[in-house]
Amino acid sequence: MAKKPATTNLKNAFYAQSGGVTAVINASACGVIETARKHSDKIGKVYAGQNGIIGALQEELIDTSKETPRAIAGLRHTPSGAFGSCRYKLKSLEHNRAEYERLIEVFKAHNIGYFFYNGGGDSADTCLKISQLSKSMRYPIQAIHVPKTVDNDLPITDNCPGFGSVAKYIAVSTREASFDVASMCATSTKVFVLEVMGRHAGWIAAAGGLATDENCDLPIIILFPEVKFNQTKFLALVKEKVKQYGYVSIVVSEGVQDRSGKFLADAGTTDAFGHAQLGGVAPVIANLVRAKLGYKYHWAVADYLQRSARHIASKNDVDQAYAMGKAAVELAIAGENSVMPTVVRKSNKPYKWTIGKAKLSRVANVEKMMPANFISKDGFGITQKCRDYLAPLIKGEDYPPYKNGMPVYVTLKKKLVKKKLKDEFIVK
Amino acid sequence: MAKKPATTNLKNAFYAQSGGVTAVINASACGVIETARKHSDKIGKVYAGQNGIIGALQEELIDTSKETPRAIAGLRHTPSGAFGSCRYKLKSLEHNRAEYERLIEVFKAHNIGYFFYNGGGDSADTCLKISQLSKSMRYPIQAIHVPKTVDNDLPITDNCPGFGSVAKYIAVSTREASFDVASMCATSTKVFVLEVMGRHAGWIAAAGGLATDENCDLPIIILFPEVKFNQTKFLALVKEKVKQYGYVSIVVSEGVQDRSGKFLADAGTTDAFGHAQLGGVAPVIANLVRAKLGYKYHWAVADYLQRSARHIASKNDVDQAYAMGKAAVELAIAGENSVMPTVVRKSNKPYKWTIGKAKLSRVANVEKMMPANFISKDGFGITQKCRDYLAPLIKGEDYPPYKNGMPVYVTLKKKLVKKKLKDEFIVK
Repeated sequence: MAKKPATTNLKNAFYAQSGGVTAVINASACGVIETARKHSDKIGKVYAGQNGIIGALQEELIDTSKETPRAIAGLRHTPSGAFGSCRYKLKSLEHNRAEYERLIEVFKAHNIGYFFYNGGGDSADTCLKISQLSKSMRYPIQAIHVPKTVDNDLPITDNCPGFGSVAKYIAVSTREASFDVASMCATSTKVFVLEVMGRHAGWIAAAGGLATDENCDLPIIILFPEVKFNQTKFLALVKEKVKQYGYVSIVVSEGVQDRSGKFLADAGTTDAFGHAQLGGVAPVIANLVRAKLGYKYHWAVADYLQRSARHIASKNDVDQAYAMGKAAVELAIAGENSVMPTVVRKSNKPYKWTIGKAKLSRVANVEKMMPANFISKDGFGITQKCRDYLAPLIKGEDYPPYKNGMPVYVTLKKKLVKKKLKDEFIVK
Repeated sequence: MAKKPATTNLKNAFYAQSGGVTAVINASACGVIETARKHSDKIGKVYAGQNGIIGALQEELIDTSKETPRAIAGLRHTPSGAFGSCRYKLKSLEHNRAEYERLIEVFKAHNIGYFFYNGGGDSADTCLKISQLSKSMRYPIQAIHVPKTVDNDLPITDNCPGFGSVAKYIAVSTREASFDVASMCATSTKVFVLEVMGRHAGWIAAAGGLATDENCDLPIIILFPEVKFNQTKFLALVKEKVKQYGYVSIVVSEGVQDRSGKFLADAGTTDAFGHAQLGGVAPVIANLVRAKLGYKYHWAVADYLQRSARHIASKNDVDQAYAMGKAAVELAIAGENSVMPTVVRKSNKPYKWTIGKAKLSRVANVEKMMPANFISKDGFGITQKCRDYLAPLIKGEDYPPYKNGMPVYVTLKKKLVKKKLKDEFIVK
């Protein structure tokens, strides 16, 4: 099947990964490719953009039919973007129509009739525009968006594949570090600060709140980007928790701002080499605590570790990531266009979900923030409502295979399709 | 058995955790307590020091017989120090004989004949002194040291329980983050810096080298505390790796020093609040790379996450941690004194190990550094010899149980024994 040449009757598909990668975006790729292979009577080959949409613009298309079924299956447990991703955002149609026209040309040259774009809000917008332009250029393309983002900020869908796994990583790490600090706090570190991703929305920081629950009482303070940093209230709470528990763990979003709207991470400092130093916010918070309260501290910055931690991925997240890829292909086969499959939550206990769909016009460029009733009144924690929402998303373990103590992640051959267009198009 | 009162004929045991905690020190505690319970005809109760040796000095003894067998079994999969630990180092006998005498008094008051001390080089020294002093004070105590340290710097033993798990965490995280960077490097981050523990010895940093192997080719540069930082050679290598692979991952030990012996992490900077900023070295290295080579970077500081990451513990490490605790009790029962059980490596392939013993006089205050032939000639990587040594230590997974997506870690009751001494002893 993998070696069957595409006939002219069958339209090929194009798949690309967009924006920051996650622990499970390849599971969506796996869902797209495996499902397309199952429907080889409807879809020809699946070409993947090398380094995302740039691959389409530069006509650098990876022929996924050259990859073995085993390698494709391995994508399900491999973090990162196996085909390469990029943060390249297409300009508006008015500002750079040439880019969109180039995409359609490339798709035409390679007989591509399906466009699967795996990303966040920006890529949903690109997806929508391609669908619109293909109509006006009279080369029909069915454009389906596959949701992905650790930030969990896409609208309509209950949650975004990628988020559940980073949430699990943060919740587990915060619990483990809190146990560590608890054992030493009588004579040593009393304040532990963990910096997490989330410039605009506090979803990831909120997951730190799951470290403590009815069976495991831990003192956790969360600093959300949605809540302006109040130094006085914050320090009072740190003091209170240390008095009560002997220590406290602080989960701080990289996007926390002071009252004037300035990122706390923009410390304006220079380092030993005299270079301006950017971020992180964790040392800033830690130093503040020590200067004002005198507590010994430690701090950590999880950075890429949090979004690539496939070894502690959430099973529900992996399942949903795969399901979104699969559903995207099924929507395409059913004749849909300009849509995105979504996760629809049916119930919390037991957790039940199904697949819905959303029009891209309602998804593109809309950012879903934390609802106000997910943040506790004092601004430093999560509510039961938030807990009920987050809990199922981190549920289940889905361990990758190991060899010699190390997880076995796949690297693809990434064989490029021969270019057909004469014009070069270089993305700067 | 747990409720059987200690008879006057049976000597009780004292167990304490010392220094920085690890993902598996509680597995050693589990080995000590379970083995002692099995030999209830030889050993009375096991008392644990609350917050380490300070608990003994202050006569704050946790009665482990009040803990259920299930809770004690749960220690095997619980990170941190369940009884509390401390970095309190007893002064020399000449400088503070009173402290040692107080310990013996407390042991005498509670009919303690066995002293199990779970820690690194300092605690081996304390252990030795207690054994010596008990002789001169004519109150016999069998003092057995149980090896533990993430730093892997104890002599004689092939490796130290605690190290294998932090090594596995660093190797896995470095592999995952490298996959992440690889997928974005064409247009985004090209240099990822991960800061790891190890002020004096580069064992933990070396584990970053395991991220790449014959099945998984990744560009990794390691900065060891054993190798003075050479900026020119370092930058040239970064450039070379980025040219060859498109990106590079740098694993940097917190203890890296410049040619004058100054820690690179001591940046001497002040933050937004005007406070002096301490560490880390990761942003210093990242900023240097950007300033000199212009590459976009990201950096992470693993800090406590690395040593508390029980969720990704090495099975061999857990097994050995438990075995050391068990062996310590068996050595005590066999009448040994002033010794430490050790891991003896029998063969690499297949990995075979057994238990040996070392005299404390040969262990105390000796730091085992990385052998020179474990560091590659250029100073930025590990040799095959090092790889052969490290590989078995990270082998095997030993997942904790999960509930609702979170690892279930035990918290003990920690019921204190009634004090018997009239004098208070306060550790300042």
